[in-house]
Amino acid sequence: MSPALSVEPVPGLPEIEPGARLGELIAEAAEGLGEGDVVAISQKAVSKAEGRVRRLAGVAPGDEAEQLAQGLGKDPRLVQLVLEESVKVLRAERGVLIAETRHGFVCANAGIDTSNLAEPDSACLLPEDPDASARRIRGEISGALEGSPVLAVAIGDSFGRAWRLGQAEVAIGCAGLAPLDDWRGRADAAGRELTATRIAVADEAVAAADLARDKTSRTPAVVVRGLDRRLLTREDGPGAAALLRPPEEDLFR
Amino acid sequence: MSPALSVEPVPGLPEIEPGARLGELIAEAAEGLGEGDVVAISQKAVSKAEGRVRRLAGVAPGDEAEQLAQGLGKDPRLVQLVLEESVKVLRAERGVLIAETRHGFVCANAGIDTSNLAEPDSACLLPEDPDASARRIRGEISGALEGSPVLAVAIGDSFGRAWRLGQAEVAIGCAGLAPLDDWRGRADAAGRELTATRIAVADEAVAAADLARDKTSRTPAVVVRGLDRRLLTREDGPGAAALLRPPEEDLFR
Repeated sequence: MSPALSVEPVPGLPEIEPGARLGELIAEAAEGLGEGDVVAISQKAVSKAEGRVRRLAGVAPGDEAEQLAQGLGKDPRLVQLVLEESVKVLRAERGVLIAETRHGFVCANAGIDTSNLAEPDSACLLPEDPDASARRIRGEISGALEGSPVLAVAIGDSFGRAWRLGQAEVAIGCAGLAPLDDWRGRADAAGRELTATRIAVADEAVAAADLARDKTSRTPAVVVRGLDRRLLTREDGPGAAALLRPPEEDLFR
Repeated sequence: MSPALSVEPVPGLPEIEPGARLGELIAEAAEGLGEGDVVAISQKAVSKAEGRVRRLAGVAPGDEAEQLAQGLGKDPRLVQLVLEESVKVLRAERGVLIAETRHGFVCANAGIDTSNLAEPDSACLLPEDPDASARRIRGEISGALEGSPVLAVAIGDSFGRAWRLGQAEVAIGCAGLAPLDDWRGRADAAGRELTATRIAVADEAVAAADLARDKTSRTPAVVVRGLDRRLLTREDGPGAAALLRPPEEDLFR
Protein backbone atom coordinates (compact mmCIF):
# COMPACT_ATOMS: atom_id res chain seq x y z
CA MET A 1 0.00 0.00 0.00
CA SER A 2 1.37 3.40 -0.98
CA PRO A 3 1.48 6.24 1.50
CA ALA A 4 -1.37 8.70 1.94
CA LEU A 5 -0.47 12.35 2.22
CA SER A 6 -1.99 15.21 4.09
CA VAL A 7 -1.35 18.83 3.20
CA GLU A 8 -2.19 21.40 5.89
CA PRO A 9 -1.60 25.12 6.03
CA VAL A 10 0.06 26.42 9.18
CA PRO A 11 -2.47 28.81 10.69
CA GLY A 12 -1.93 32.10 12.44
CA LEU A 13 1.47 33.22 11.25
CA PRO A 14 2.03 36.97 11.53
CA GLU A 15 3.05 39.21 8.64
CA ILE A 16 6.73 38.39 8.21
CA GLU A 17 9.09 41.22 9.10
CA PRO A 18 12.79 41.55 8.21
CA GLY A 19 14.84 39.55 10.69
CA ALA A 20 11.97 37.24 11.61
CA ARG A 21 13.09 33.78 12.66
CA LEU A 22 10.73 31.99 10.34
CA GLY A 23 11.56 28.50 11.53
CA GLU A 24 10.78 29.37 15.15
CA LEU A 25 7.52 31.07 14.18
CA ILE A 26 6.49 27.99 12.20
CA ALA A 27 7.49 25.54 14.92
CA GLU A 28 5.36 27.53 17.35
CA ALA A 29 2.31 27.86 15.07
CA ALA A 30 2.22 24.41 13.47
CA GLU A 31 0.48 21.65 15.34
CA GLY A 32 2.15 18.31 15.92
CA LEU A 33 5.12 18.95 13.68
CA GLY A 34 7.35 15.91 13.64
CA GLU A 35 9.24 13.09 12.01
CA GLY A 36 8.80 12.85 8.26
CA ASP A 37 7.03 16.18 7.77
CA VAL A 38 7.96 18.51 4.95
CA VAL A 39 7.42 22.18 5.74
CA ALA A 40 6.80 24.02 2.48
CA ILE A 41 7.39 27.76 2.75
CA SER A 42 6.65 30.42 0.19
CA GLN A 43 9.61 32.27 -1.27
CA LYS A 44 8.04 35.59 -0.41
CA ALA A 45 7.96 34.89 3.31
CA VAL A 46 11.60 33.82 3.25
CA SER A 47 12.62 36.86 1.22
CA LYS A 48 10.75 39.18 3.58
CA ALA A 49 12.43 37.63 6.61
CA GLU A 50 15.78 38.09 4.90
CA GLY A 51 15.15 41.73 4.06
CA ARG A 52 15.05 41.13 0.33
CA VAL A 53 12.36 43.73 -0.36
CA ARG A 54 13.49 46.83 -2.27
CA ARG A 55 11.77 50.21 -2.53
CA LEU A 56 11.61 51.08 -6.22
CA ALA A 57 12.15 54.76 -5.39
CA GLY A 58 15.71 53.88 -4.40
CA VAL A 59 16.59 52.10 -7.66
CA ALA A 60 18.43 54.00 -10.41
CA PRO A 61 17.92 52.27 -13.74
CA GLY A 62 20.90 52.13 -16.10
CA ASP A 63 20.84 52.45 -19.90
CA GLU A 64 20.26 48.75 -20.53
CA ALA A 65 17.34 48.68 -18.11
CA GLU A 66 15.81 51.84 -19.62
CA GLN A 67 16.02 50.38 -23.12
CA LEU A 68 14.67 46.97 -22.19
CA ALA A 69 11.89 48.52 -20.12
CA GLN A 70 10.77 50.72 -22.98
CA GLY A 71 10.53 47.78 -25.37
CA LEU A 72 8.65 45.69 -22.83
CA GLY A 73 6.38 48.32 -21.31
CA LYS A 74 7.81 47.63 -17.86
CA ASP A 75 8.98 49.85 -15.02
CA PRO A 76 12.70 50.56 -15.71
CA ARG A 77 13.47 50.32 -11.98
CA LEU A 78 12.04 46.81 -11.87
CA VAL A 79 14.04 45.87 -14.97
CA GLN A 80 17.16 47.26 -13.31
CA LEU A 81 16.61 44.92 -10.36
CA VAL A 82 16.04 42.00 -12.75
CA LEU A 83 19.34 42.72 -14.48
CA GLU A 84 21.17 42.95 -11.16
CA GLU A 85 19.79 39.58 -10.08
CA SER A 86 20.54 37.86 -13.40
CA VAL A 87 23.50 36.47 -15.24
CA LYS A 88 21.71 36.34 -18.58
CA VAL A 89 18.56 37.61 -20.26
CA LEU A 90 17.11 34.73 -22.27
CA ARG A 91 14.07 36.41 -23.80
CA ALA A 92 12.83 40.00 -23.81
CA GLU A 93 9.79 40.30 -26.01
CA ARG A 94 6.01 40.73 -25.93
CA GLY A 95 6.18 42.24 -22.48
CA VAL A 96 7.95 39.19 -21.09
CA LEU A 97 11.41 39.19 -19.57
CA ILE A 98 12.87 35.73 -18.98
CA ALA A 99 16.20 35.64 -17.23
CA GLU A 100 18.65 33.19 -15.76
CA THR A 101 19.22 34.25 -12.18
CA ARG A 102 22.52 34.20 -10.36
CA HIS A 103 21.36 30.98 -8.71
CA GLY A 104 20.69 29.39 -12.12
CA PHE A 105 16.88 29.55 -12.12
CA VAL A 106 15.23 30.41 -15.43
CA CYS A 107 12.10 32.42 -14.77
CA ALA A 108 10.18 35.58 -15.54
CA ASN A 109 11.68 38.77 -14.09
CA ALA A 110 14.39 36.81 -12.29
CA GLY A 111 11.73 35.81 -9.78
CA ILE A 112 11.14 39.40 -8.69
CA ASP A 113 7.57 40.39 -8.04
CA THR A 114 5.54 43.17 -6.54
CA SER A 115 2.43 41.48 -5.14
CA ASN A 116 1.57 40.82 -1.50
CA LEU A 117 4.05 43.32 -0.12
CA ALA A 118 3.21 45.50 2.85
CA GLU A 119 4.98 48.56 1.42
CA PRO A 120 3.76 50.16 -1.80
CA ASP A 121 6.10 50.61 -4.79
CA SER A 122 8.39 47.87 -3.68
CA ALA A 123 9.66 44.64 -5.18
CA CYS A 124 10.61 41.34 -3.63
CA LEU A 125 13.80 39.59 -4.73
CA LEU A 126 14.53 35.88 -4.40
CA PRO A 127 16.62 34.90 -1.37
CA GLU A 128 20.37 35.23 -1.94
CA ASP A 129 20.85 31.49 -1.43
CA PRO A 130 17.54 29.65 -1.03
CA ASP A 131 19.19 26.34 -0.14
CA ALA A 132 21.06 28.06 2.68
CA SER A 133 17.75 29.65 3.75
CA ALA A 134 16.12 26.21 3.82
CA ARG A 135 18.96 24.79 5.89
CA ARG A 136 18.79 27.65 8.37
CA ILE A 137 15.01 27.44 8.74
CA ARG A 138 15.24 23.68 9.11
CA GLY A 139 17.75 24.16 11.90
CA GLU A 140 15.45 26.64 13.62
CA ILE A 141 12.49 24.26 13.42
CA SER A 142 14.48 21.26 14.65
CA GLY A 143 15.93 23.32 17.46
CA ALA A 144 12.46 24.27 18.65
CA LEU A 145 11.18 20.67 18.71
CA GLU A 146 12.02 17.92 21.14
CA GLY A 147 13.74 14.69 20.14
CA SER A 148 15.42 15.86 16.90
CA PRO A 149 12.80 14.54 14.48
CA VAL A 150 13.91 14.23 10.85
CA LEU A 151 11.82 16.74 8.97
CA ALA A 152 12.48 18.74 5.84
CA VAL A 153 12.05 22.28 4.58
CA ALA A 154 11.27 23.22 0.98
CA ILE A 155 10.97 26.79 -0.28
CA GLY A 156 8.59 27.16 -3.21
CA ASP A 157 7.95 29.84 -5.80
CA SER A 158 5.50 30.02 -8.69
CA PHE A 159 7.32 29.84 -12.00
CA GLY A 160 5.92 29.99 -15.49
CA ARG A 161 6.81 27.15 -17.81
CA ALA A 162 7.85 26.80 -21.44
CA TRP A 163 5.00 25.36 -23.54
CA ARG A 164 2.35 25.42 -20.82
CA LEU A 165 0.20 28.24 -19.54
CA GLY A 166 -0.05 29.29 -15.93
CA GLN A 167 2.44 29.05 -13.11
CA ALA A 168 3.23 26.05 -10.99
CA GLU A 169 5.12 26.01 -7.72
CA VAL A 170 8.68 24.72 -7.90
CA ALA A 171 11.28 24.27 -5.19
CA ILE A 172 13.96 26.97 -5.16
CA GLY A 173 15.49 25.69 -1.96
CA CYS A 174 15.29 22.59 0.20
CA ALA A 175 16.99 20.86 3.10
CA GLY A 176 16.48 17.34 4.41
CA LEU A 177 14.52 16.34 1.32
CA ALA A 178 15.82 14.48 -1.74
CA PRO A 179 15.11 16.92 -4.57
CA LEU A 180 15.06 14.11 -7.11
CA ASP A 181 13.87 10.56 -6.58
CA ASP A 182 16.07 8.58 -8.91
CA TRP A 183 14.52 5.41 -10.28
CA ARG A 184 17.07 4.88 -13.02
CA GLY A 185 18.46 1.39 -12.90
CA ARG A 186 15.62 0.14 -10.71
CA ALA A 187 13.02 -2.24 -12.12
CA ASP A 188 9.43 -1.50 -13.11
CA ALA A 189 6.45 -3.66 -12.11
CA ALA A 190 7.23 -6.03 -14.97
CA GLY A 191 10.86 -6.35 -13.88
CA ARG A 192 12.29 -4.24 -16.71
CA GLU A 193 14.77 -1.49 -16.02
CA LEU A 194 13.41 2.05 -15.75
CA THR A 195 15.70 4.17 -17.88
CA ALA A 196 14.72 7.81 -17.59
CA THR A 197 12.74 8.19 -14.41
CA ARG A 198 13.90 10.82 -11.99
CA ILE A 199 10.95 12.36 -10.21
CA ALA A 200 11.33 15.97 -9.10
CA VAL A 201 9.76 15.26 -5.74
CA ALA A 202 10.75 18.59 -4.17
CA ASP A 203 8.88 20.39 -6.95
CA GLU A 204 5.87 18.10 -6.55
CA ALA A 205 5.87 18.62 -2.77
CA VAL A 206 5.72 22.42 -3.02
CA ALA A 207 3.13 22.12 -5.80
CA ALA A 208 0.97 20.04 -3.47
CA ALA A 209 1.46 22.65 -0.75
CA ASP A 210 0.42 25.42 -3.12
CA LEU A 211 -3.02 23.82 -3.50
CA ALA A 212 -3.63 24.35 0.21
CA ARG A 213 -2.58 27.98 0.11
CA ASP A 214 -4.94 30.89 -0.40
CA LYS A 215 -3.26 33.43 -2.69
CA THR A 216 -4.82 36.40 -0.95
CA SER A 217 -4.34 35.28 2.62
CA ARG A 218 -1.13 34.96 4.50
CA THR A 219 -0.43 31.25 4.56
CA PRO A 220 3.29 31.19 3.91
CA ALA A 221 3.81 27.75 5.42
CA VAL A 222 2.14 24.45 4.63
CA VAL A 223 2.98 21.06 6.12
CA VAL A 224 3.07 18.05 3.80
CA ARG A 225 2.80 14.87 5.83
CA GLY A 226 3.20 11.26 4.76
CA LEU A 227 5.77 11.57 2.02
CA ASP A 228 7.72 8.37 1.41
CA ARG A 229 10.09 8.33 4.40
CA ARG A 230 12.92 7.29 2.07
CA LEU A 231 12.91 10.84 0.62
CA LEU A 232 13.74 12.55 3.91
CA THR A 233 17.32 12.60 5.14
CA ARG A 234 18.99 13.51 8.38
CA GLU A 235 21.59 15.40 6.31
CA ASP A 236 20.52 18.62 4.65
CA GLY A 237 21.46 17.08 1.30
CA PRO A 238 22.16 18.71 -2.07
CA GLY A 239 19.25 21.16 -1.98
CA ALA A 240 17.19 22.45 -4.87
CA ALA A 241 20.39 23.42 -6.69
CA ALA A 242 20.41 19.76 -7.77
CA LEU A 243 17.24 20.45 -9.77
CA LEU A 244 18.98 22.92 -12.06
CA ARG A 245 19.70 21.56 -15.50
CA PRO A 246 23.27 22.57 -16.38
CA PRO A 247 23.09 25.23 -19.15
CA GLU A 248 25.42 23.22 -21.37
CA GLU A 249 23.00 20.25 -21.25
CA ASP A 250 19.90 22.38 -21.74
CA LEU A 251 18.27 22.35 -25.18
CA PHE A 252 15.99 25.33 -24.55
CA ARG A 253 17.99 28.37 -23.52
CA MET B 1 -8.45 29.18 7.25
CA SER B 2 -7.32 27.58 4.01
CA PRO B 3 -8.38 24.08 3.08
CA ALA B 4 -6.42 21.02 4.08
CA LEU B 5 -5.90 18.35 1.46
CA SER B 6 -5.61 14.62 1.63
CA VAL B 7 -4.04 12.53 -1.10
CA GLU B 8 -4.87 8.82 -1.06
CA PRO B 9 -4.05 6.08 -3.52
CA VAL B 10 -6.96 3.91 -4.62
CA PRO B 11 -6.02 0.40 -3.50
CA GLY B 12 -6.60 -2.90 -5.19
CA LEU B 13 -7.07 -1.98 -8.84
CA PRO B 14 -6.35 -4.84 -11.23
CA GLU B 15 -3.86 -4.65 -14.11
CA ILE B 16 -5.73 -2.55 -16.68
CA GLU B 17 -6.72 -4.42 -19.82
CA PRO B 18 -7.83 -2.97 -23.16
CA GLY B 19 -11.52 -2.10 -22.97
CA ALA B 20 -11.50 -1.79 -19.18
CA ARG B 21 -14.07 0.68 -17.86
CA LEU B 22 -11.59 2.53 -15.69
CA GLY B 23 -14.15 4.84 -14.08
CA GLU B 24 -16.27 1.93 -12.90
CA LEU B 25 -13.24 0.08 -11.56
CA ILE B 26 -12.17 3.17 -9.64
CA ALA B 27 -15.64 3.90 -8.28
CA GLU B 28 -15.78 0.32 -7.00
CA ALA B 29 -12.29 0.30 -5.45
CA ALA B 30 -12.13 3.81 -3.95
CA GLU B 31 -13.60 4.32 -0.53
CA GLY B 32 -16.04 7.14 0.15
CA LEU B 33 -15.63 8.86 -3.20
CA GLY B 34 -17.80 11.96 -3.29
CA GLU B 35 -18.41 15.67 -3.69
CA GLY B 36 -15.32 17.74 -4.32
CA ASP B 37 -12.90 14.86 -4.90
CA VAL B 38 -10.40 14.92 -7.73
CA VAL B 39 -9.51 11.49 -9.07
CA ALA B 40 -6.02 11.65 -10.55
CA ILE B 41 -5.31 8.83 -12.97
CA SER B 42 -2.03 7.93 -14.61
CA GLN B 43 -1.82 8.30 -18.35
CA LYS B 44 -0.57 4.76 -18.70
CA ALA B 45 -3.68 3.23 -17.16
CA VAL B 46 -5.89 5.29 -19.46
CA SER B 47 -3.82 4.41 -22.50
CA LYS B 48 -3.92 0.71 -21.62
CA ALA B 49 -7.70 0.80 -21.20
CA GLU B 50 -7.95 2.50 -24.59
CA GLY B 51 -5.76 -0.06 -26.33
CA ARG B 52 -2.98 2.43 -27.02
CA VAL B 53 -0.18 -0.09 -26.52
CA ARG B 54 1.76 -1.05 -29.69
CA ARG B 55 3.98 -4.07 -30.25
CA LEU B 56 7.24 -2.78 -31.69
CA ALA B 57 7.51 -5.89 -33.88
CA GLY B 58 4.60 -4.57 -35.91
CA VAL B 59 6.11 -1.14 -36.58
CA ALA B 60 7.96 -0.50 -39.86
CA PRO B 61 10.25 2.52 -39.48
CA GLY B 62 10.46 4.89 -42.44
CA ASP B 63 13.58 6.68 -43.67
CA GLU B 64 13.17 9.68 -41.37
CA ALA B 65 12.79 7.44 -38.34
CA GLU B 66 15.81 5.34 -39.31
CA GLN B 67 17.96 8.44 -39.71
CA LEU B 68 16.82 10.10 -36.48
CA ALA B 69 17.18 6.85 -34.57
CA GLN B 70 20.73 6.36 -35.75
CA GLY B 71 21.76 9.84 -34.62
CA LEU B 72 20.06 9.44 -31.26
CA GLY B 73 20.91 5.83 -30.48
CA LYS B 74 17.23 4.96 -30.22
CA ASP B 75 15.13 2.08 -31.52
CA PRO B 76 13.95 3.15 -35.03
CA ARG B 77 10.55 1.56 -34.43
CA LEU B 78 10.04 3.72 -31.33
CA VAL B 79 11.13 6.80 -33.28
CA GLN B 80 8.65 5.87 -36.02
CA LEU B 81 5.84 5.86 -33.43
CA VAL B 82 7.04 9.22 -32.08
CA LEU B 83 6.91 10.73 -35.58
CA GLU B 84 3.43 9.33 -36.16
CA GLU B 85 2.19 10.88 -32.91
CA SER B 86 3.83 14.26 -33.53
CA VAL B 87 3.27 17.33 -35.64
CA LYS B 88 6.79 18.65 -35.13
CA VAL B 89 10.17 17.55 -33.85
CA LEU B 90 11.57 20.39 -31.72
CA ARG B 91 14.91 18.91 -30.72
CA ALA B 92 16.75 15.75 -31.70
CA GLU B 93 20.18 15.71 -30.15
CA ARG B 94 22.25 14.08 -27.39
CA GLY B 95 19.94 11.08 -27.35
CA VAL B 96 16.90 13.26 -26.64
CA LEU B 97 13.90 13.57 -28.93
CA ILE B 98 11.52 16.40 -27.97
CA ALA B 99 8.37 16.61 -30.05
CA GLU B 100 5.13 18.51 -30.17
CA THR B 101 2.38 15.93 -30.15
CA ARG B 102 -0.80 16.07 -32.20
CA HIS B 103 -2.55 17.27 -29.04
CA GLY B 104 -0.06 20.13 -28.63
CA PHE B 105 2.00 18.75 -25.73
CA VAL B 106 5.73 19.34 -25.87
CA CYS B 107 7.52 16.39 -24.34
CA ALA B 108 10.19 13.74 -24.78
CA ASN B 109 9.33 10.99 -27.27
CA ALA B 110 5.84 12.43 -27.81
CA GLY B 111 4.92 10.94 -24.44
CA ILE B 112 5.56 7.39 -25.63
CA ASP B 113 7.26 5.07 -23.20
CA THR B 114 8.05 1.46 -22.68
CA SER B 115 8.02 0.95 -18.92
CA ASN B 116 5.42 -0.82 -16.81
CA LEU B 117 3.85 -2.67 -19.73
CA ALA B 118 2.69 -6.25 -19.41
CA GLU B 119 3.89 -7.24 -22.89
CA PRO B 120 7.59 -7.10 -23.74
CA ASP B 121 8.85 -5.06 -26.69
CA SER B 122 5.87 -2.79 -26.67
CA ALA B 123 5.31 0.94 -26.32
CA CYS B 124 2.51 2.94 -24.80
CA LEU B 125 1.13 5.96 -26.67
CA LEU B 126 -0.74 8.87 -25.09
CA PRO B 127 -4.54 8.65 -25.32
CA GLU B 128 -5.95 9.95 -28.62
CA ASP B 129 -7.85 12.71 -26.80
CA PRO B 130 -7.02 12.80 -23.07
CA ASP B 131 -9.69 15.41 -22.27
CA ALA B 132 -12.30 13.17 -23.87
CA SER B 133 -10.90 10.27 -21.84
CA ALA B 134 -11.24 12.33 -18.66
CA ARG B 135 -14.82 13.23 -19.51
CA ARG B 136 -15.72 9.62 -20.22
CA ILE B 137 -14.10 8.32 -17.03
CA ARG B 138 -15.77 11.09 -15.03
CA GLY B 139 -19.12 10.03 -16.45
CA GLU B 140 -18.43 6.41 -15.50
CA ILE B 141 -17.51 7.36 -11.94
CA SER B 142 -20.50 9.67 -11.50
CA GLY B 143 -22.80 7.02 -12.96
CA ALA B 144 -21.61 4.49 -10.40
CA LEU B 145 -22.18 6.80 -7.41
CA GLU B 146 -25.44 7.88 -5.84
CA GLY B 147 -26.63 11.47 -5.75
CA SER B 148 -24.57 12.88 -8.65
CA PRO B 149 -21.73 14.35 -6.56
CA VAL B 150 -19.57 16.95 -8.33
CA LEU B 151 -16.17 15.35 -8.63
CA ALA B 152 -13.40 15.75 -11.14
CA VAL B 153 -11.00 13.58 -13.09
CA ALA B 154 -7.45 14.57 -14.06
CA ILE B 155 -5.12 12.42 -16.14
CA GLY B 156 -1.45 12.94 -15.34
CA ASP B 157 1.79 12.10 -17.06
CA SER B 158 5.41 12.72 -16.07
CA PHE B 159 7.00 15.29 -18.37
CA GLY B 160 10.52 16.61 -18.38
CA ARG B 161 10.94 20.36 -18.21
CA ALA B 162 13.11 22.95 -19.86
CA TRP B 163 15.79 24.27 -17.46
CA ARG B 164 15.04 21.84 -14.62
CA LEU B 165 16.12 18.26 -14.11
CA GLY B 166 13.74 15.41 -13.43
CA GLN B 167 10.16 14.88 -14.43
CA ALA B 168 7.08 16.29 -12.78
CA GLU B 169 3.52 15.14 -13.30
CA VAL B 170 1.36 17.43 -15.45
CA ALA B 171 -2.27 17.14 -16.43
CA ILE B 172 -2.79 15.94 -19.99
CA GLY B 173 -6.55 15.68 -19.58
CA CYS B 174 -9.16 16.80 -17.10
CA ALA B 175 -12.90 17.13 -16.62
CA GLY B 176 -14.83 18.94 -13.93
CA LEU B 177 -11.71 20.76 -12.75
CA ALA B 178 -10.61 24.28 -13.63
CA PRO B 179 -7.20 23.71 -15.25
CA LEU B 180 -6.12 27.25 -14.40
CA ASP B 181 -7.09 29.29 -11.36
CA ASP B 182 -7.09 32.80 -12.70
CA TRP B 183 -6.26 35.50 -10.15
CA ARG B 184 -5.60 38.26 -12.67
CA GLY B 185 -7.63 41.32 -11.80
CA ARG B 186 -8.26 40.14 -8.25
CA ALA B 187 -6.60 41.84 -5.32
CA ASP B 188 -3.70 40.63 -3.21
CA ALA B 189 -3.61 40.75 0.60
CA ALA B 190 -2.60 44.41 0.45
CA GLY B 191 -5.46 45.28 -1.91
CA ARG B 192 -3.30 45.70 -5.00
CA GLU B 193 -4.24 44.00 -8.23
CA LEU B 194 -2.54 40.71 -9.04
CA THR B 195 -1.39 40.98 -12.62
CA ALA B 196 0.14 37.74 -13.77
CA THR B 197 -1.15 35.05 -11.48
CA ARG B 198 -2.76 32.05 -13.09
CA ILE B 199 -2.11 28.92 -11.12
CA ALA B 200 -1.98 25.68 -13.07
CA VAL B 201 -4.05 23.86 -10.47
CA ALA B 202 -4.67 20.77 -12.61
CA ASP B 203 -0.92 20.31 -12.94
CA GLU B 204 -0.42 20.83 -9.21
CA ALA B 205 -3.21 18.35 -8.40
CA VAL B 206 -1.66 15.53 -10.43
CA ALA B 207 1.77 16.43 -9.04
CA ALA B 208 0.38 16.03 -5.53
CA ALA B 209 -1.15 12.71 -6.55
CA ASP B 210 2.17 11.52 -7.94
CA LEU B 211 3.75 11.81 -4.49
CA ALA B 212 1.33 9.18 -3.21
CA ARG B 213 2.07 6.77 -6.04
CA ASP B 214 4.67 4.06 -5.95
CA LYS B 215 6.40 3.93 -9.35
CA THR B 216 6.85 0.17 -9.22
CA SER B 217 3.44 -0.75 -7.91
CA ARG B 218 0.18 -0.49 -9.72
CA THR B 219 -1.46 2.56 -8.22
CA PRO B 220 -2.93 4.18 -11.30
CA ALA B 221 -5.53 6.19 -9.39
CA VAL B 222 -5.13 8.59 -6.48
CA VAL B 223 -7.87 10.66 -4.86
CA VAL B 224 -7.09 14.28 -3.97
CA ARG B 225 -9.61 15.52 -1.41
CA GLY B 226 -10.18 19.01 -0.07
CA LEU B 227 -9.28 21.13 -3.08
CA ASP B 228 -10.89 24.56 -3.03
CA ARG B 229 -14.48 23.73 -4.00
CA ARG B 230 -14.48 26.74 -6.35
CA LEU B 231 -12.16 24.83 -8.68
CA LEU B 232 -14.59 21.97 -9.29
CA THR B 233 -17.41 22.45 -11.77
CA ARG B 234 -20.54 20.54 -12.64
CA GLU B 235 -19.67 21.07 -16.32
CA ASP B 236 -16.72 19.17 -17.73
CA GLY B 237 -15.08 22.50 -18.60
CA PRO B 238 -12.26 23.31 -21.02
CA GLY B 239 -10.01 20.42 -20.05
CA ALA B 240 -6.22 20.33 -19.98
CA ALA B 241 -6.15 21.64 -23.55
CA ALA B 242 -6.52 25.05 -21.88
CA LEU B 243 -3.06 24.55 -20.35
CA LEU B 244 -1.36 24.49 -23.74
CA ARG B 245 0.49 27.67 -24.56
CA PRO B 246 -0.33 28.55 -28.18
CA PRO B 247 2.82 27.94 -30.31
CA GLU B 248 2.66 31.51 -31.69
CA GLU B 249 2.87 32.88 -28.12
CA ASP B 250 5.59 30.51 -27.02
CA LEU B 251 9.12 31.86 -26.71
CA PHE B 252 10.82 28.48 -26.36
CA ARG B 253 10.00 26.25 -29.29
